[in-house]
Amino acid sequence: MGFEMHPRLTTDCATLCDLPLSTALLARDPRFHWVILVPRIAGLRDLHDVPPEHRAALFDEIETVSGALGRIVDADKINVAALGNQVSQLHVHVIARRRDDPTWPDPVWSAPAADAALAGAELAARAQRIKEEIST
Amino acid sequence: MGFEMHPRLTTDCATLCDLPLSTALLARDPRFHWVILVPRIAGLRDLHDVPPEHRAALFDEIETVSGALGRIVDADKINVAALGNQVSQLHVHVIARRRDDPTWPDPVWSAPAADAALAGAELAARAQRIKEEIST
Repeated sequence: MGFEMHPRLTTDCATLCDLPLSTALLARDPRFHWVILVPRIAGLRDLHDVPPEHRAALFDEIETVSGALGRIVDADKINVAALGNQVSQLHVHVIARRRDDPTWPDPVWSAPAADAALAGAELAARAQRIKEEIST
Repeated sequence: MGFEMHPRLTTDCATLCDLPLSTALLARDPRFHWVILVPRIAGLRDLHDVPPEHRAALFDEIETVSGALGRIVDADKINVAALGNQVSQLHVHVIARRRDDPTWPDPVWSAPAADAALAGAELAARAQRIKEEIST
């Protein structure tokens, strides 16, 4: 079986771009600049399932996305997490955090979900900005 | 300045052992088998601050700890996260999760802190078990 993106990830996120190893998704949460990296390898569940020969690439992509989001929002911290209790397919959250964001200093998962999903022109503009910053 | 462990990490955790790159701490939370890896390099904040030549070692140590905790509790998922909004020094949470644990499928941070910290003989026994499993 080849790699297939879990449908819940496709529903909850907008696709940003394909990096060498991972597909970068944008979480539809207006409160945070939040990217999810999904390595395009079939059968991965936990972070340590990434084969050793692909780990440097994943780390590079975390660095690329962290830098891009950090510059856009002038972040105080970058949160990186592979949880996957709801969607077991490996996906790595990269979230730019600021001391004035709605859940600081708690993890973003400590608060209820956003009232409304990021959509339309606002979603498109944010996605475009992140794609530009990733490619610089 | 050399590496110094943040005192909050020392207070909140028990020291398990030194791995080649990181010091492994045990979170004093009775509800979860929860290890925190702290790379012994001064000045690290975010995950991508780990110098490229040390990234494979960190990944190896995440794998070692994930395997150990996973075997001990017969885990359904391993959660790995570098957050650090409260203690900015880089530390990587590795938490074995089970479908019957108190916060599943939410992240462990979604629930209030445990009523009582793991201590005494129970802490010592858990630490010993994890150390043995890490070294196998």
